Amino acid sequence: MKLRVVLVEPLYEGNVGSVARAMKNFGFHELVLVNPCKIEDFGSAMASHARDVLQMARTFAGLPEALVGANLVVGTTGKRLDEAQHHLRLHLRVPCFTPAELAGKLQGKEGTVALLLGREDCGLNSEELALCDMLVSIPTSSEYPVMNLSHSAAVLFYELSQNDNGKCCQVEMARGESLALLQERIRSLLAEVSYPVHKVEFTLLMLRRILGRAELTEREARTLLGLIKRIRWRIAGCGKPESPEQS
Amino acid sequence: MKLRVVLVEPLYEGNVGSVARAMKNFGFHELVLVNPCKIEDFGSAMASHARDVLQMARTFAGLPEALVGANLVVGTTGKRLDEAQHHLRLHLRVPCFTPAELAGKLQGKEGTVALLLGREDCGLNSEELALCDMLVSIPTSSEYPVMNLSHSAAVLFYELSQNDNGKCCQVEMARGESLALLQERIRSLLAEVSYPVHKVEFTLLMLRRILGRAELTEREARTLLGLIKRIRWRIAGCGKPESPEQS
Repeated sequence: MKLRVVLVEPLYEGNVGSVARAMKNFGFHELVLVNPCKIEDFGSAMASHARDVLQMARTFAGLPEALVGANLVVGTTGKRLDEAQHHLRLHLRVPCFTPAELAGKLQGKEGTVALLLGREDCGLNSEELALCDMLVSIPTSSEYPVMNLSHSAAVLFYELSQNDNGKCCQVEMARGESLALLQERIRSLLAEVSYPVHKVEFTLLMLRRILGRAELTEREARTLLGLIKRIRWRIAGCGKPESPEQS
Repeated sequence: MKLRVVLVEPLYEGNVGSVARAMKNFGFHELVLVNPCKIEDFGSAMASHARDVLQMARTFAGLPEALVGANLVVGTTGKRLDEAQHHLRLHLRVPCFTPAELAGKLQGKEGTVALLLGREDCGLNSEELALCDMLVSIPTSSEYPVMNLSHSAAVLFYELSQNDNGKCCQVEMARGESLALLQERIRSLLAEVSYPVHKVEFTLLMLRRILGRAELTEREARTLLGLIKRIRWRIAGCGKPESPEQS
């Protein structure tokens, strides 16, 4: 899936630069501007290390030209409940997906998706919405639903980029054997500290759940095993301060 | 779950205002600033209709004061792979969750979560990261991983705001004092089992993170405190099998 970001008549160059930055942050590069404001030093500064995205952006006078070659056109729309009375307008705006639902829909798809973001003050108009195959809306607070343009963009890029990459940091999860060994050693430790027999199973389960929820790494499991070994050695030896490493 | 947004030494007032706006967009209101830049007209303009969030923000000189009363401290960290060589630094930064994983973890929890966002140029430093129970990192492109502060904030608020929609049983999270007491008792235990001095800080931090990721309930914290008390009593008494309950 290739994303083409289409800004329709953006009013502030700072927002255009910020959108370019957010695009590059999430691995997107194709920016198209429809009848934009002038983009000068401030827009370029806001793009920061994504100036290349801004410089390679294509500019068109109208929306239809900006959509040539797109397989799917997705429009973004905010909460504008006051407009909902009008039948056609309502139809234009619903049903729409959440960003997560949109990402799910596009998962594993090939082709170019044009994502339309409208003007800062009034979004996409009826004719523009009519060109969209699908709508997406970010669930916001009814108290203040109007997001900054580049914030909306960042949230959408974030969701759409999840389709490609997985977790943020790859860390080796604890192996099943290590977790089983931990349970066994904790059980021995409980016996050695005369833990009340009727509480043993409860506490073992509780510890298993705590460690399970923490999603232990293999390294952490080994450190815990080392710590328990040392405690048990200390209890067994009772006051002999030799190192347990040799045992 | 109540979210407290903590900006640590933000450099640009525009970002502070933008974060306030994104907070209100997603229904969050408690903003805390640690040693911030001056916030004047531009910051206020960027906050737009969230000026009230900015005006009600509390300001502190240091991070510890800003965390008083928080049940869980979550640090945000970007990709800084060049630092990964250093042992403690690596440990300070991994493992971390994606925003979606963090939202899943916090689902259905009660209590105050402090979400720390660091400086625009260098994020949170090692001492600040050491105060965190959990880390979150937004998966970004390796080509340009450094996001604008308010964009990161918007993505995090977006994910965390989804939590209120879902229903789950409410569980009392461990109190800050209980977690602090656990740290203190584990430190004493490590000393009593002659844990290698050069490993103590590392292991304490690791345990803090494990317990943080597990999001201990108050009941679990009390059970762990009881278990540690019993172990320490067993070590001190060396072979006297009386119950510690009376002690």
